[in-house]
Amino acid sequence: MDKNKIYTVYGINSAKAVLQSGKCFIQKIFLDYNGAAYKDPLIKKFLSDDSKKYAINNISLANNEVLKNERRLQGIVVIFSFSGIKESAMDFFNDSDDNDCILILDQLEDPQNLGQIIRTSECAGVNKIILTKNKSVKLSDSVFQVSQGAFSDISFHICTNLRNTLNILKENDYWLVALENSIDSDNWCDIDLKGKIGIILGSEGKGIRRLTMEDADFKATIPMQGSINSLNVSATCSAILFERLRQIIK
Amino acid sequence: MDKNKIYTVYGINSAKAVLQSGKCFIQKIFLDYNGAAYKDPLIKKFLSDDSKKYAINNISLANNEVLKNERRLQGIVVIFSFSGIKESAMDFFNDSDDNDCILILDQLEDPQNLGQIIRTSECAGVNKIILTKNKSVKLSDSVFQVSQGAFSDISFHICTNLRNTLNILKENDYWLVALENSIDSDNWCDIDLKGKIGIILGSEGKGIRRLTMEDADFKATIPMQGSINSLNVSATCSAILFERLRQIIK
Repeated sequence: MDKNKIYTVYGINSAKAVLQSGKCFIQKIFLDYNGAAYKDPLIKKFLSDDSKKYAINNISLANNEVLKNERRLQGIVVIFSFSGIKESAMDFFNDSDDNDCILILDQLEDPQNLGQIIRTSECAGVNKIILTKNKSVKLSDSVFQVSQGAFSDISFHICTNLRNTLNILKENDYWLVALENSIDSDNWCDIDLKGKIGIILGSEGKGIRRLTMEDADFKATIPMQGSINSLNVSATCSAILFERLRQIIK
Repeated sequence: MDKNKIYTVYGINSAKAVLQSGKCFIQKIFLDYNGAAYKDPLIKKFLSDDSKKYAINNISLANNEVLKNERRLQGIVVIFSFSGIKESAMDFFNDSDDNDCILILDQLEDPQNLGQIIRTSECAGVNKIILTKNKSVKLSDSVFQVSQGAFSDISFHICTNLRNTLNILKENDYWLVALENSIDSDNWCDIDLKGKIGIILGSEGKGIRRLTMEDADFKATIPMQGSINSLNVSATCSAILFERLRQIIK
């Protein structure tokens, strides 16, 4: 179903990522030949590449003032379909290495947070993300835009039954680490995050659901040092994913 | 100058933080007695506290539809002045402990990023932030709002000459660590982040200025694992501040 969905992103960074990604199939490009994007060597090279004729043939010179006057667009808008959404979590296992990590977002709600989490994951070497279908933010233009093109490196699976999906991961030798601030959680840096793991983050308001938590092998907490006691979920994601990276490169 | 500035935040979390903070002086509270905030025990207790008469006397029952119909407000808007802005970085040194950390933001531009950085810092036990006056985002209602009340635990200094300020830190035995992706930077987790340190982050587009970089004692990088190569500055902040926390609690 989502295979046929059409997405739109704008700006140099996002356009470059989409143009280079093997997972994005360009439908149309709106380009301002006087805009910033067309001065970018990589974008210019792509647009003059013979093998990319399908894209070139669909380039439209912007004929409305929106593209020219909206600075954020930087003179380029790309419309594409995306093949990075997998039917099953099992599709993730084909290219898994010894330190494979899958990020699991249990009913995350905010598009800004999802976009930032995608961007952070890509930078931290995590390129598999599981989302829940119900009561959860959807993959959308604005999510992809916030990710600054990082989504194009990521494979997603949107699951209807998270417990089933978690069991598939466990049967395939993934350990599950859930982030939860509770007294019986271990410090995030005391848990072995190497090897095949799934890291579970919960929703902004409610955290991880109780039944999801029951499937976790480890509970991790990042102890809050101040009095506000509430770390944004994308900041939590950054802390745990770069702790994982630290453990791997050490 | 900024001492007399009046700020406004809304919602339960922000209101609670402001009402409890010794750095926030309430000017007026707009309250919807049928709203979510007035059902919160802590807010209700504060508003019925005799010693807080100055605040109670200024409570206004919302008489317009904005407060009632805007869900994000949760029935409370607080107007206050803020004494957390220090004249000099030297004002930071009164309560510095052995592991004192000062966060330095060199011409950060985006209010959303600053708000998230404030929130992350508070959670990571860093409560001193230096901002640059020129070409930089200002402390504002929206920055404070994004921080979800965390700003009320933080002391800020807004400096006109960053190099002078950095030299004051160095004369007072702070080591300066600059985050920069370059080949002569050390991995973020290989640098000793314990003791008295200043951590410098640059602007979203340009990073840290060259002259600022010259004052740094150490250069740290978080090696990018993907192809996008661009970590949001607030995600970078989370990674480095929680690595510091890890080193301290180990």
